[in-house]
Amino acid sequence: MILEVELPTTNYQLPTTNYQSDMIKDLIKKNRSYRRFDNSFSIPLDTLRELIDFARLSPSGANLQPLKFIISNSPGTNAEIYPCLAWAGYLKDWDGPIEKERPSAYVIILGDKNIKNEFSCDCGIAAQSILLGSAEKGLGGCMIGSIQKNKLADVLNIDPQYEIQLVIALGKPVETVQIEEMKLADNIKYWRDEKNIHHVPKRSLDSIILK
Amino acid sequence: MILEVELPTTNYQLPTTNYQSDMIKDLIKKNRSYRRFDNSFSIPLDTLRELIDFARLSPSGANLQPLKFIISNSPGTNAEIYPCLAWAGYLKDWDGPIEKERPSAYVIILGDKNIKNEFSCDCGIAAQSILLGSAEKGLGGCMIGSIQKNKLADVLNIDPQYEIQLVIALGKPVETVQIEEMKLADNIKYWRDEKNIHHVPKRSLDSIILK
Repeated sequence: MILEVELPTTNYQLPTTNYQSDMIKDLIKKNRSYRRFDNSFSIPLDTLRELIDFARLSPSGANLQPLKFIISNSPGTNAEIYPCLAWAGYLKDWDGPIEKERPSAYVIILGDKNIKNEFSCDCGIAAQSILLGSAEKGLGGCMIGSIQKNKLADVLNIDPQYEIQLVIALGKPVETVQIEEMKLADNIKYWRDEKNIHHVPKRSLDSIILK
Repeated sequence: MILEVELPTTNYQLPTTNYQSDMIKDLIKKNRSYRRFDNSFSIPLDTLRELIDFARLSPSGANLQPLKFIISNSPGTNAEIYPCLAWAGYLKDWDGPIEKERPSAYVIILGDKNIKNEFSCDCGIAAQSILLGSAEKGLGGCMIGSIQKNKLADVLNIDPQYEIQLVIALGKPVETVQIEEMKLADNIKYWRDEKNIHHVPKRSLDSIILK
């Protein structure tokens, strides 16, 4: 017997009423990598948990969901996390934000090796959801991959079952970051001008679409 | 001489006026992995280019921007791409969408080995931007990592300089996908019920936040 199955379409609605159609573009543009924040601004744990929920509801390869998260918004723990991170590799004369411009919070993304051994794509997906969610809340941040992992694992007492993938620094940005078209071929190094505006060269759309 | 530098804050504005504050949450929830589409619906190349622009403006490790993209919205090329992909590994009795439910378009994400050799995190970031942008436009899609890469490279005549990372299938979804709380420990396999509703078990928020 062949059953005729009606296509279930009730849950699917064209999203035209709730928000402007250019919203995601605005958020993606607003979501620059910020490295200087107003450290007097605090981010509630509930906000951080909501951001992790955005990661939770994002795609995961084979739906394995191997990522785990540690969140910190306390000055004490933040101060222990900070020295484990390297900031803005291309700015050779800048060692990272001064104390009053340090992040208000951190999200540490871990891979659970009991589930699988490769986490990078899932980690990128999750990190982008977290940062777009942050941008919508008026926050900004930076995905930091240059981490002293053993030191951070010690500081946070992370079980060897979990592999540190990425640290997201979050706060209320106090810097201007501008995208610019890449002028010299392959010169992708970001730079700061005399007014401390951070410039980020991006490849052109035509150069990255092969066909 | 020490110059006093005023913090440049003019470009930074709290995003409270342009859109609802729950918009990104709505989009993330709406952005399920869809595998059945209305194949009669077509997606213009300009739309695909705009989605790639969202990826272009997303974060990239050390700003290297190693990703390249191939887009297809033509029935002929789509028909060549389709057999290179494996669909929904956990649905053992389903070989993929029937012809009239196949994707209207594809985005192939490539890593440019002349720039670097590891692309997964950047690829995840880009893919999530593309899919959230798609969701806003009333489209849906699926990130497909199970690819016959040599075959696809032949079909699309991809230079060995580029490593195939991910294929994003896009279209107007004709299926209902529901998130559900994971009931049995570690049973992350998605499944379809007798009404063809696709159920996706997700780990709980408390189980993925370690501290």
